Amino acid sequence: MRCGNGIEARQVDELFINIDPIQAGGRLTADAMKAVVAYGDGYSVCDNCRKPNRLDYISKPPIAEFHKDVAAWLNMDAVRTVPGARRGFQAIAQTYVNKGDPVLVTSLSHYTEFLAVEEAGGVAREIAANDRKIVTPEATAAKIEEVKKEFGRAPVLAFIDQVDYQYGNMHDVGGIARVAHQYDIPVVCNGAYTVGILPVDGKALGVDFVVGSGHKSMAAPAPSGILAATAERGKEVFRTTLIEGDITRRKFGIKEPEMMGCTLMGVTLVGMMASFPHVKERTKHFDRELENNRIVMEALLSIEGTACLSEYPRKHPMTRVDTTASFDTVAASHKKRGYFLQSALEEKGVTGLIPGATKVWKFNTYGMTRRQAGHLADAFVAIARENGLAVRG
Amino acid sequence: MRCGNGIEARQVDELFINIDPIQAGGRLTADAMKAVVAYGDGYSVCDNCRKPNRLDYISKPPIAEFHKDVAAWLNMDAVRTVPGARRGFQAIAQTYVNKGDPVLVTSLSHYTEFLAVEEAGGVAREIAANDRKIVTPEATAAKIEEVKKEFGRAPVLAFIDQVDYQYGNMHDVGGIARVAHQYDIPVVCNGAYTVGILPVDGKALGVDFVVGSGHKSMAAPAPSGILAATAERGKEVFRTTLIEGDITRRKFGIKEPEMMGCTLMGVTLVGMMASFPHVKERTKHFDRELENNRIVMEALLSIEGTACLSEYPRKHPMTRVDTTASFDTVAASHKKRGYFLQSALEEKGVTGLIPGATKVWKFNTYGMTRRQAGHLADAFVAIARENGLAVRG
Repeated sequence: MRCGNGIEARQVDELFINIDPIQAGGRLTADAMKAVVAYGDGYSVCDNCRKPNRLDYISKPPIAEFHKDVAAWLNMDAVRTVPGARRGFQAIAQTYVNKGDPVLVTSLSHYTEFLAVEEAGGVAREIAANDRKIVTPEATAAKIEEVKKEFGRAPVLAFIDQVDYQYGNMHDVGGIARVAHQYDIPVVCNGAYTVGILPVDGKALGVDFVVGSGHKSMAAPAPSGILAATAERGKEVFRTTLIEGDITRRKFGIKEPEMMGCTLMGVTLVGMMASFPHVKERTKHFDRELENNRIVMEALLSIEGTACLSEYPRKHPMTRVDTTASFDTVAASHKKRGYFLQSALEEKGVTGLIPGATKVWKFNTYGMTRRQAGHLADAFVAIARENGLAVRG
Repeated sequence: MRCGNGIEARQVDELFINIDPIQAGGRLTADAMKAVVAYGDGYSVCDNCRKPNRLDYISKPPIAEFHKDVAAWLNMDAVRTVPGARRGFQAIAQTYVNKGDPVLVTSLSHYTEFLAVEEAGGVAREIAANDRKIVTPEATAAKIEEVKKEFGRAPVLAFIDQVDYQYGNMHDVGGIARVAHQYDIPVVCNGAYTVGILPVDGKALGVDFVVGSGHKSMAAPAPSGILAATAERGKEVFRTTLIEGDITRRKFGIKEPEMMGCTLMGVTLVGMMASFPHVKERTKHFDRELENNRIVMEALLSIEGTACLSEYPRKHPMTRVDTTASFDTVAASHKKRGYFLQSALEEKGVTGLIPGATKVWKFNTYGMTRRQAGHLADAFVAIARENGLAVRG
């Protein structure tokens, strides 16, 4: 089936259990699907835009209310929507980082934080994760001191991934923020893997900003996300425009330069809004997600030679495993070579593994039913047995 | 009908002829509607992302091909998609503008160009439109000389709206670019009202950049747009990342800092792609749009006291009129006051007029059938007659 010139209709999540590490949290809810159909047109949310003419003031559809609700939900003071978490990082970096300024990231930071630092002219300095791939407050303190020696001043900003994209490990953002604040460094909690997945309380973490991703973790179309700030920091990043036309003397009201004015004018925003009640609810049942992950991980770990590279027990369902001493030993002699695992999984109705991966790979059990988790667990074990790998128990 | 908590299903373009000035070019095509349903999920286009792992390299769906096709269509060398034209302006401003640098805009420039200049720390200097609300090469030359006197150097960049948002007037971007290039000033053609509406040839215009808006003029969901560059300028704005992790020594491949990596990961991009063949085709029939606009404008101008504030005959269907001496004289004594015109239009199946507008307002006939244009023309005349205004002919 095609939906346009050369564009096949996508049916990945309709036909398969999808273990792709980044796609699970961004699958639309049924309400978001309806919203996408109703608000597909370009400027669809602007029908009732009235003075002061800014997206977050529109009350029909209830965009203004959504902004307030998200702020309350994250226990932060001010929220804006952005075209992806990365655009939140960019807005913050452009506000605080000048040419040559040191900025803290971590050795597990997402590349978009590096790009935000680079675009602002800053210099990235990584806080080292420890042997268990965890970034700690102690390592943060050490790095800040190191930066002070190198640059003669403290970093101007810190981006900390609450759950990192490499291991899906949970880092002590609250403890890190306390250390950073001793040096007056504003702290961004990168919640791309947490906001919309598990409960996040910005004030409890003590961070200056919480950034979330709509298409990664809030069941929303791309590109979408949220940038939440404390009242104090909101005044800085969400400052209103001061520029003026030299001839016309035009000013531009309450538009915000770091937001480039209005941000998500249609389907992305309404999709995020329609999913929001469901997203709020699902974060309350995050324990079920960890339980599903445990079922799959126990199956994987029962296959001799398989190791979990992420912290274990898991605190997030996105997980990195090492099957070099299990599935990869099969690849060497299998007629499909490294593609055998992906192929065998697809035969069992599972997709989302990187083609050719048999050594180190990531998967995500997020959003599965208990039955799907059981099926996936059984699939891994069956594929192992079919290929002569030893399975315990 | 609702599509989520408090979100009413939008049916504006299903139930009415919509004359909103900014919405007409962003209505989805049927193929885009199908694409929106099939690719609603967050990271929907990333199923087949392979090395070098960048959005514009994905071949299934045919994203790479789309990028090439758009570049060829605009007669430019390199194209990227962006979350709205404004994000294209931002990328360009961040590349060329340093703190305190003068940047040319026009007295009719869109506010997002000002915000891009402001965010980059630049100083906006407007080229004055003439009495006919047209920005000319002569005025550009005069302004550049004025800037040179004021700043001791030429502007570092020029944003020129090919068709402006205030009057929908067509400006001589080619002539302006020739003048600007005598001073080595890169020129951005803001095609938010033209790319996807009428034929645009970047090389013929001689500009360095062409920026288009998906949700404004390419029948795509928001936020979406394109940034096209010459080969030379593409190397500057689409430069790849150089930043490196100081501990991990990580580099980030061919990701582009001004794009913040990948840009449109799902529905926005596929919507734009699905509409693209139709959008290409419709630009070839732009004469029909002007003819529809003429039918409506002649009706409006037959109402005594009505004036066209845009250039006339029209070169674009988005038009600004002054009805202070016609419809506004009715508002003074009508029981619905200034809302009578909007109300009367809605009774005749027409929506999109700003509520309360009876003095100076904009409308757009883009995308109407000949019959709809005739209906709209008749509606204006009938409302005038019903309210005792004199109508010629």
